[in-house]
Amino acid sequence: MIEPEKLSEHVERLNAELRRGLIVLVVMSQLEEKQYGYSLLKQLEEKSFSITQDTLYPMMRRLENQGYLQSDWQLDDNRPRRYYQLNEFGQAVLDALRKDWKTQLRIIEEIVR
Amino acid sequence: MIEPEKLSEHVERLNAELRRGLIVLVVMSQLEEKQYGYSLLKQLEEKSFSITQDTLYPMMRRLENQGYLQSDWQLDDNRPRRYYQLNEFGQAVLDALRKDWKTQLRIIEEIVR
Repeated sequence: MIEPEKLSEHVERLNAELRRGLIVLVVMSQLEEKQYGYSLLKQLEEKSFSITQDTLYPMMRRLENQGYLQSDWQLDDNRPRRYYQLNEFGQAVLDALRKDWKTQLRIIEEIVR
Repeated sequence: MIEPEKLSEHVERLNAELRRGLIVLVVMSQLEEKQYGYSLLKQLEEKSFSITQDTLYPMMRRLENQGYLQSDWQLDDNRPRRYYQLNEFGQAVLDALRKDWKTQLRIIEEIVR
């Protein structure tokens, strides 16, 4: 007899691991256009990819530290917002990643079925 | 000017992260049938999914520790080999994971393009 709670606990953990590596790709792909943190969060939500601020904001800081982003402050309705966008290097990384990933994904889909 | 070595270093690292979570799914899917470590390695290689022993063997031990596998020793040509296969719990985890993953993947593909 398999306990449903035990099963879902294991499945959730593995699912989180599956997502972890993919989130970088998802977030970078959205930063081809200028975004601030919250607009990105909302945009991903609309596309059915739910991500929390606790995951997204450290991820964006990490992408910035890696040298993939340019950012600047803008005033929107008198509120300062920091906007981010891929710089030239980030765009090159994303382009390569996307290409590799599509090939990998096709292979994995074929294996996993 | 983007340095090619710097670019490929970044791309390789991110690619490794992308793969890390997916490897569990790949390996579990192959363990619906009985396999020993080396046969699994060869089978994945044939399907164009390259994985090293240093990645695969710890992964199999981890799956076993998580309680997903049954294993037994068999003598093949007088060589003892440890065979692994998903047990009932492992199969239930894989089934759930596969279903969730297919949905997630469709969403991610749509976002990343």
